[in-house]
Amino acid sequence: MTPISIEQIPGTVTTATDAAVNMMPLGEYIFKRLEQVHNVRSVFGVPGDFQLSLLEHIYKTKLNWVGGCNELNSGYAADGYSRYTRSLGVLITTYGVGELSAINAVSGAFAEYSKILHIVGMPSTKVMTDEQLKKQHIHHLVPDLDSLKDSNHLVYADMVDKVCCAKKIIMNQDQILDDLDDLILQIFKTSRPGYLFLPVDLSDELVNAERLHSQSLEHIHKSFLEIKDSEEDRHITELANKVLEQVYNAKNPVILADVLADRYANGQELLQEFINKTNLHHYVTFMGKSLVSEYHPKFVGDYQGSLLSNPGIHENFVSSDLVLYVGPYINEMNTGKYTAEFKENTIILHADYLKIGQTIYRDAHFIKLLAKMNSIMDQTRVPINPLLQFPITKKFANIPSTAKINQSTLLSKLEAFIQPNDVLVCETGSVMFGLPDIKFPTGMRYIAQGFYLSIGMALPASVGVGCAMRDLGSSQRLILLEGDGSAQMTIQEISAFEHLKIKPIIFLLNNNGYTVERIIKGEHQSYNDVKPWNWLNCFKFFNVQEDSVRTAKIVEVTELTKALNSIETRSVTEGTLEFYEIILDQLDVPWRFHAMNSNRLLPKMD
Amino acid sequence: MTPISIEQIPGTVTTATDAAVNMMPLGEYIFKRLEQVHNVRSVFGVPGDFQLSLLEHIYKTKLNWVGGCNELNSGYAADGYSRYTRSLGVLITTYGVGELSAINAVSGAFAEYSKILHIVGMPSTKVMTDEQLKKQHIHHLVPDLDSLKDSNHLVYADMVDKVCCAKKIIMNQDQILDDLDDLILQIFKTSRPGYLFLPVDLSDELVNAERLHSQSLEHIHKSFLEIKDSEEDRHITELANKVLEQVYNAKNPVILADVLADRYANGQELLQEFINKTNLHHYVTFMGKSLVSEYHPKFVGDYQGSLLSNPGIHENFVSSDLVLYVGPYINEMNTGKYTAEFKENTIILHADYLKIGQTIYRDAHFIKLLAKMNSIMDQTRVPINPLLQFPITKKFANIPSTAKINQSTLLSKLEAFIQPNDVLVCETGSVMFGLPDIKFPTGMRYIAQGFYLSIGMALPASVGVGCAMRDLGSSQRLILLEGDGSAQMTIQEISAFEHLKIKPIIFLLNNNGYTVERIIKGEHQSYNDVKPWNWLNCFKFFNVQEDSVRTAKIVEVTELTKALNSIETRSVTEGTLEFYEIILDQLDVPWRFHAMNSNRLLPKMD
Repeated sequence: MTPISIEQIPGTVTTATDAAVNMMPLGEYIFKRLEQVHNVRSVFGVPGDFQLSLLEHIYKTKLNWVGGCNELNSGYAADGYSRYTRSLGVLITTYGVGELSAINAVSGAFAEYSKILHIVGMPSTKVMTDEQLKKQHIHHLVPDLDSLKDSNHLVYADMVDKVCCAKKIIMNQDQILDDLDDLILQIFKTSRPGYLFLPVDLSDELVNAERLHSQSLEHIHKSFLEIKDSEEDRHITELANKVLEQVYNAKNPVILADVLADRYANGQELLQEFINKTNLHHYVTFMGKSLVSEYHPKFVGDYQGSLLSNPGIHENFVSSDLVLYVGPYINEMNTGKYTAEFKENTIILHADYLKIGQTIYRDAHFIKLLAKMNSIMDQTRVPINPLLQFPITKKFANIPSTAKINQSTLLSKLEAFIQPNDVLVCETGSVMFGLPDIKFPTGMRYIAQGFYLSIGMALPASVGVGCAMRDLGSSQRLILLEGDGSAQMTIQEISAFEHLKIKPIIFLLNNNGYTVERIIKGEHQSYNDVKPWNWLNCFKFFNVQEDSVRTAKIVEVTELTKALNSIETRSVTEGTLEFYEIILDQLDVPWRFHAMNSNRLLPKMD
Repeated sequence: MTPISIEQIPGTVTTATDAAVNMMPLGEYIFKRLEQVHNVRSVFGVPGDFQLSLLEHIYKTKLNWVGGCNELNSGYAADGYSRYTRSLGVLITTYGVGELSAINAVSGAFAEYSKILHIVGMPSTKVMTDEQLKKQHIHHLVPDLDSLKDSNHLVYADMVDKVCCAKKIIMNQDQILDDLDDLILQIFKTSRPGYLFLPVDLSDELVNAERLHSQSLEHIHKSFLEIKDSEEDRHITELANKVLEQVYNAKNPVILADVLADRYANGQELLQEFINKTNLHHYVTFMGKSLVSEYHPKFVGDYQGSLLSNPGIHENFVSSDLVLYVGPYINEMNTGKYTAEFKENTIILHADYLKIGQTIYRDAHFIKLLAKMNSIMDQTRVPINPLLQFPITKKFANIPSTAKINQSTLLSKLEAFIQPNDVLVCETGSVMFGLPDIKFPTGMRYIAQGFYLSIGMALPASVGVGCAMRDLGSSQRLILLEGDGSAQMTIQEISAFEHLKIKPIIFLLNNNGYTVERIIKGEHQSYNDVKPWNWLNCFKFFNVQEDSVRTAKIVEVTELTKALNSIETRSVTEGTLEFYEIILDQLDVPWRFHAMNSNRLLPKMD
């Protein structure tokens, strides 16, 4: 192909020739840039008139467009995609009506260290800058409270500062080159959502796409996790040695594995390697569930403070003389309502800092430290833990239930059903608080919103997870544990599975309303009721072919056993979508939820 | 009933006796106060752990709790309730996950002058003020980007400043007394949403409820619209005369009726009275549709500038030598993309100001001016309009359609179908832009989001409208014009009709995706597709009794005629829910939408 000769046009300079070859529309450039990012294959959102000009360019790439029924659902799907891929979940919405509908999903992603890149279509740069035009009140935009004042086109962009790591408002095409790369880097560094606000007229403007070739983004997700020079290497080595020396000198050091280890590149592998090399007793937090192999001989259990741990767990944990807390997220839900005890002997290995005693070291990412410790560790000096002092039992209590299946039975059956490498997405609801009582097989992925707890998230998130599994060629099963009240929030997105040829195994736990709320207040009040739907008819409405779905309503334990036995091992795209409505008692919740509810907040940490 | 004698308790003072009798829990007080507000009978929302303690108190009042499937839907329903009742639409959500899910509905209400009172449950005052506790990251709350910083419990409250008229963060129980009344007053004064942030522990605290008896809120919705003293009376009379003198001295004065006249107390009646008394030619805007009787002999038509008005309308409008623009909302959609011409001879009667020529008078609410003008007008001095100079025709164009029913036919049939006093809720979508071409019968109410244009709003809004109609004992029919793409956003709320015993007549216009977007860009692109659902199966899923719903899929014109003829005159709570899926061509839109799309924004106003 011969490039158009710019030299023939009077007034142009010869040096422009190379650049001209690489000129492409900004919209195309954005998608091509995203295509370079590790594990980004699908993009989520809902079209709107302020970003159609952007969407148009996606067809020039291999990226899949996954249209959602609404923007909140698309936001949740992008979050699910990000959690599974440990990379960007790209979300595209339109000005005002779209971006605001999705803001709860973005806020949840922020609260849970999930990497959504939210691209929002905006009015044209001309509308925002022309002295006459910018006075106009254009659709989707709230005018000022005072009707005599001009519109502020950034009114929505101003809302997101506390739920994103960074935002970029693009006002000319050349700005995109640095801003997009920087935004993506910030998202990976903080593992938090970032915003790109893009005026509608810019998508067709030409930009110099030369860096697509000269500076690939292939390694951006881990670039900042690599030690950059010998000075940093000395610094990290020194800190790694400081931590290791404490390990060598302790009598009974233990490791607590938490969710941030899941959020950075190969954090999970580095952590498992560290565990294997030290062979120390280790625990996992509520949000860290599935992060480490629960079949490792030194895995002790799920640590959720004195309040929510199984008997013996807390006692053993606090009897240790050194805790290495890796990838921590210290919050109410993750610490047994702050009853987890972290004494002076705790070393915190965070993405933002390393804390040893009362000393905080910035610029010491736990990924760098883990990698360094794995490489320099003297295994002979790592102490062997004494035997566990306190016996560990399980409070797998039988809670009274008027239904034939109670949650304790359900959890036992689930424990037997799940297989190595299954992916389990769990809705916010009572059953979530029973999962620390069951043992996950090795290689499992567990995805849930354990802290932000926005009900309705899991179903659309599982669409995103399913997309990600399909995109990456997973041979795993996708299982969704869903509640009736939460499913009512976002049910329409269940129709996406058929459309995307994803075949999850869905258990809808029907306990006749908001059971979690009933336990807190209003056991039998109407505000905790939901409308009774005929769940099994859902697929006829959503136009799922009869031969591609299996459904059953399950009331008896024998029916549950039979159903579980009938579900085959297969990949996320094979077989049929399975949907089981399981009838539970409306006041049946795991013991842990009762414990959590009966205890007021106790300040234990500082 | 003998009040408990406080005098018997040592240390109390006698003056406390009266107050003690009136002490009641803050939660109960809030609902009893709301109960006093004109037309407030139902309250919308979704329960959450931060407001269950509030909800508990609703059962001590006659207010209905209307639980939504999700918070966005409840927000839309509250908006619909407010539009129909011209009073508060009360929305209750929980911290973070709930309030953010609803923020797009609130933003839409702000953009369209709808009166949502949004009550948000928050963490307890102790959690927010105790030096130790406030460091904790509690569930539903996004921590700071820097993991070493404390939580900011007001992070969500900070987001709403530009989408509300006022917000009150209640930090002790006594504050509620003035703050609630003031907030409600602000909402009515601005006809905009207001926020009440309520910590979970305060609902059970006792407050002195004495003002429930001594200062009723019965008239709060119009209190500020009454002339308060002789000085104000002189001021308003002077301004009213100023306006009237201009009318008397004009040759061809006309009235343009707009949506704000619908938003304040008896604004519509005052406007119709003003029209009747002056007997001047008058027009209605896009958003003002149904505000004035279209069967009045001097009603000229729907004015949407030179771009979107039917032929002759704009020409007649601009030939006038004086325009009285009442209750104006000057925005892109309402002015034919700013092609409406308002010259020097325009008098603007707004809620915030009166504008005569270039002079702006604050403190001259159009309601006060209309009432005054109606009372002091010398009808003999009002000129009689000359005959209309330009013939008015209708561009009821037959747009090419591959479907057997096209939108032009549909609009004609609808025009014949709708009856006086029907309530029509219309979804944002192509058909909305055809409605200015049909004549509405007298007494009809038209409810649509003509400026903010958030698709998915109309269905849940019609639930709120239906509640309001039921609450106020309406004998009217409720009709919903819905689209397929928009219905997918919020479909679950359709199950509320059965639950609430509301029987709307629903026309689902199925044009196979986002037709409005297809016209703008991507006619056949996949991003404008939606998933194909079997709409008629929806009620089996949502558990609507077979004998309480009639459904049909309509492809042929004869089927449409037959269906429309079979629908009886009845009230909103009588008969069956009717649901007709009407198949349209995916590129068939009213001429007005093509005109709007082909024209760029033109700055015409200043």
